[in-house]
Amino acid sequence: MQLRNCLALGAMLSIFSVQLLATQTPLSNAQKQTATQLMQTALESKLGMEIVTSLTTEIGPRLGGSEAEARARDWGVELGKRLGFDKAQIEEFTMPFWQRGKLHIALTSPYQQELYGTALGGAAPTQEKITADIVYFRDIHALADVKDGALKGKIAFVDGDLMVKSQTGAGYGQANQRRRIGWQHAQRGGALGLVVRSVGSDSHRFPHSGMMSKDGDKWASIPVIAISNPDADHLRRLHNLDTPLTISLHSESKWQGDVSSGNVVLDLIGSEKPEEIVLIGGHLDSWDLGTGAVDDGAGIAITTAAAALIAKLPKRPKRTIRVVMFGAEEVGLLGAFAYAKQHEANLTNHVLATESDFGAQTIWQLESNVNPQATLLIDEIAKILSPLGIVRGRSDAPGGGPDIIPMAAKGVPTIRLNQNGHDYFDLHHTPDDTLDKINPAELAQNIAAYAASIYLIADSDVELKP
Amino acid sequence: MQLRNCLALGAMLSIFSVQLLATQTPLSNAQKQTATQLMQTALESKLGMEIVTSLTTEIGPRLGGSEAEARARDWGVELGKRLGFDKAQIEEFTMPFWQRGKLHIALTSPYQQELYGTALGGAAPTQEKITADIVYFRDIHALADVKDGALKGKIAFVDGDLMVKSQTGAGYGQANQRRRIGWQHAQRGGALGLVVRSVGSDSHRFPHSGMMSKDGDKWASIPVIAISNPDADHLRRLHNLDTPLTISLHSESKWQGDVSSGNVVLDLIGSEKPEEIVLIGGHLDSWDLGTGAVDDGAGIAITTAAAALIAKLPKRPKRTIRVVMFGAEEVGLLGAFAYAKQHEANLTNHVLATESDFGAQTIWQLESNVNPQATLLIDEIAKILSPLGIVRGRSDAPGGGPDIIPMAAKGVPTIRLNQNGHDYFDLHHTPDDTLDKINPAELAQNIAAYAASIYLIADSDVELKP
Repeated sequence: MQLRNCLALGAMLSIFSVQLLATQTPLSNAQKQTATQLMQTALESKLGMEIVTSLTTEIGPRLGGSEAEARARDWGVELGKRLGFDKAQIEEFTMPFWQRGKLHIALTSPYQQELYGTALGGAAPTQEKITADIVYFRDIHALADVKDGALKGKIAFVDGDLMVKSQTGAGYGQANQRRRIGWQHAQRGGALGLVVRSVGSDSHRFPHSGMMSKDGDKWASIPVIAISNPDADHLRRLHNLDTPLTISLHSESKWQGDVSSGNVVLDLIGSEKPEEIVLIGGHLDSWDLGTGAVDDGAGIAITTAAAALIAKLPKRPKRTIRVVMFGAEEVGLLGAFAYAKQHEANLTNHVLATESDFGAQTIWQLESNVNPQATLLIDEIAKILSPLGIVRGRSDAPGGGPDIIPMAAKGVPTIRLNQNGHDYFDLHHTPDDTLDKINPAELAQNIAAYAASIYLIADSDVELKP
Repeated sequence: MQLRNCLALGAMLSIFSVQLLATQTPLSNAQKQTATQLMQTALESKLGMEIVTSLTTEIGPRLGGSEAEARARDWGVELGKRLGFDKAQIEEFTMPFWQRGKLHIALTSPYQQELYGTALGGAAPTQEKITADIVYFRDIHALADVKDGALKGKIAFVDGDLMVKSQTGAGYGQANQRRRIGWQHAQRGGALGLVVRSVGSDSHRFPHSGMMSKDGDKWASIPVIAISNPDADHLRRLHNLDTPLTISLHSESKWQGDVSSGNVVLDLIGSEKPEEIVLIGGHLDSWDLGTGAVDDGAGIAITTAAAALIAKLPKRPKRTIRVVMFGAEEVGLLGAFAYAKQHEANLTNHVLATESDFGAQTIWQLESNVNPQATLLIDEIAKILSPLGIVRGRSDAPGGGPDIIPMAAKGVPTIRLNQNGHDYFDLHHTPDDTLDKINPAELAQNIAAYAASIYLIADSDVELKP
């Protein structure tokens, strides 16, 4: 081996060693110790339960655009101040307001029986009580095949299957089609209204609410009602007995014009790079049927408590940690789009964004969508989180949560702390989404994972952009 | 040993042997084989599910005294004929009819929030919507201490604890006091109305209905509303924050005067002792909120299917097997009292009575209240049932089911095939009592146990009276 070659090899090894050092130890021992201590503190803290208890009890249900959501914003600012955030403010936006009104839906033939239903978001009201025969469709595909005008004077019922329960909530997207676009086919068929089997994995007698999709810029001009899975089972059984079905329907839910909503923004200002923002959050609004404990009081509690525990450290992390309590998520990610627009000029300063919006069961996986160098940082974080039962997932997983979509679309890097969603769609958008459904130990595990990982990213110099 | 003594000893031994024979083998091998075969057939049969599916689907909810309950009686007679019973008839009686009307109950201060409530059976209506402050009572004992007139202009809320879940349903009796007699104290206090934490072991947002107790011959003259456990939790938390609570209440449920109800009586006439009756049954009425699958469509299905399987044997058992579908059980055992009165003259011919009215989970224990000789027969039956996971319980256990109470009080012997009631009070009297809650395999186990034990008792010569 010639000297020249040896020197070249030495230089290569040296570069390699530096890279190895940089990639194998993107975190200092002190940082690792702080993260581990944060996890321990989080597991012992009651702060998360206190936050979600306060939100659901003192504010209650808080539909996007409602007076209750406005009270929740004031609550959020007050909470941020009390927990030691450096900055706590509301960023307002304007939105169209759909409000639930009274509903009565009942089977009237072959006999009288109340049905447990709820209007879907965006539905039109009935002018008065309507009574009409049901035309049964086994699933959304059957409804999609309906001929124009074939449903005149009728109410369509689109059945479907009970949503499969899974850790990832995988069945939701498909099941959700009947809720999202069913009305477009029913309306095209000339139906007086549409009744939809609830999108949910439970067999309780609760209807699941949720927003419908617009057709271009148009909302439904017919009433659309989701009924509970047991009610849908009941109609299916009667239909399978060749029993003609008639229902009566009176729904007063409707659009009410423009109102104010807003995002609550809480900042822990970074000690070295205050302009660089690590954004976490949940959504402050809820559907109106429950008190929004699981969706998404839990996400608000998890991310706020995690940041509040970091706020108690002797020194702020290098970067700014921002908790956003997004407004009006359920009704179309309106707070998320408002945030991305209002912060358009400095989105490049958002080094990372992630949201907790999948309930309160434990986190089982960490996924990311950052550059390869930063991926090694996330790998290191995953090792630190592993005592919480969290495994490392894909490093090319897009996402970050519903309210992160508009930011991610503009290039903001994301991670996901994926929660076990096995029971999430039992409760999702129903009256049953209440505080008692949250297991305090599981909530604390979430906070531990957020506190450790967000601290480490905020105290790092690693650039995460792909 | 003298001859005389020897003869006496021989006679004694002879008597002893006969007794031993009688007590150790009260059942023939042929009878045992038939019973075991019935069990096997029952476990493979779908008849029970077909019956409860038909009742809940084709009739739906069937409140005692309603038009739906009348349709259920016709259904019961028709079913009995189709299943090969020798006699199928309705025995009518008259009853006072309490009917649920519209209800709206909401928290109005500190903010507006709908509550999930239901009027309790026997409650008076509000004249119009009332809005009043809540006076909170931690439990029924606190309410019982209220001074006369101390609640004028107020609505009382009686809280309590979540009912303990247990195999035996042991917590029901005590928890039920606030539902049964709470109104008497609230009314004495001068309250405008009473709100009660639901008596149930679930944390779902369903209120549990149920009948209140009369005070002498008087029903409540105030509205009484049960709210779901999560709603009660919510009010408790707000109360514990020293938040003054106001609710609005409008309830139209009320007494409607006398109507007709009836019991359906299906007989398999005994081949040797037709006048001796082994009575089994369930109740045909249900609360109106669910479709009465678990309470007590299951009991109807279990006992009717068990008898129908016996009806397919080549020969009728010696004694008559009678299935009674009792009317108006939920609203005060009205069918049971009517039956005991209408059959007063021949109750001595009722050799045994038992009812299935504790849901559809598996039977785990056989108890009895018959004479010592007959106890040995029941012991033998328990051995035959043991492959079903059924153990022998007390032989001095009174009971036999709610509708058996009036008969048992007149000396009719009873057994109990005790079901696992662990989940029963999650569903009991709620909208959630629907067909999907029944596990077909568990229902079949019940039918197997009833078919075998009732066949053996009906084909026996053993006198059961204590």
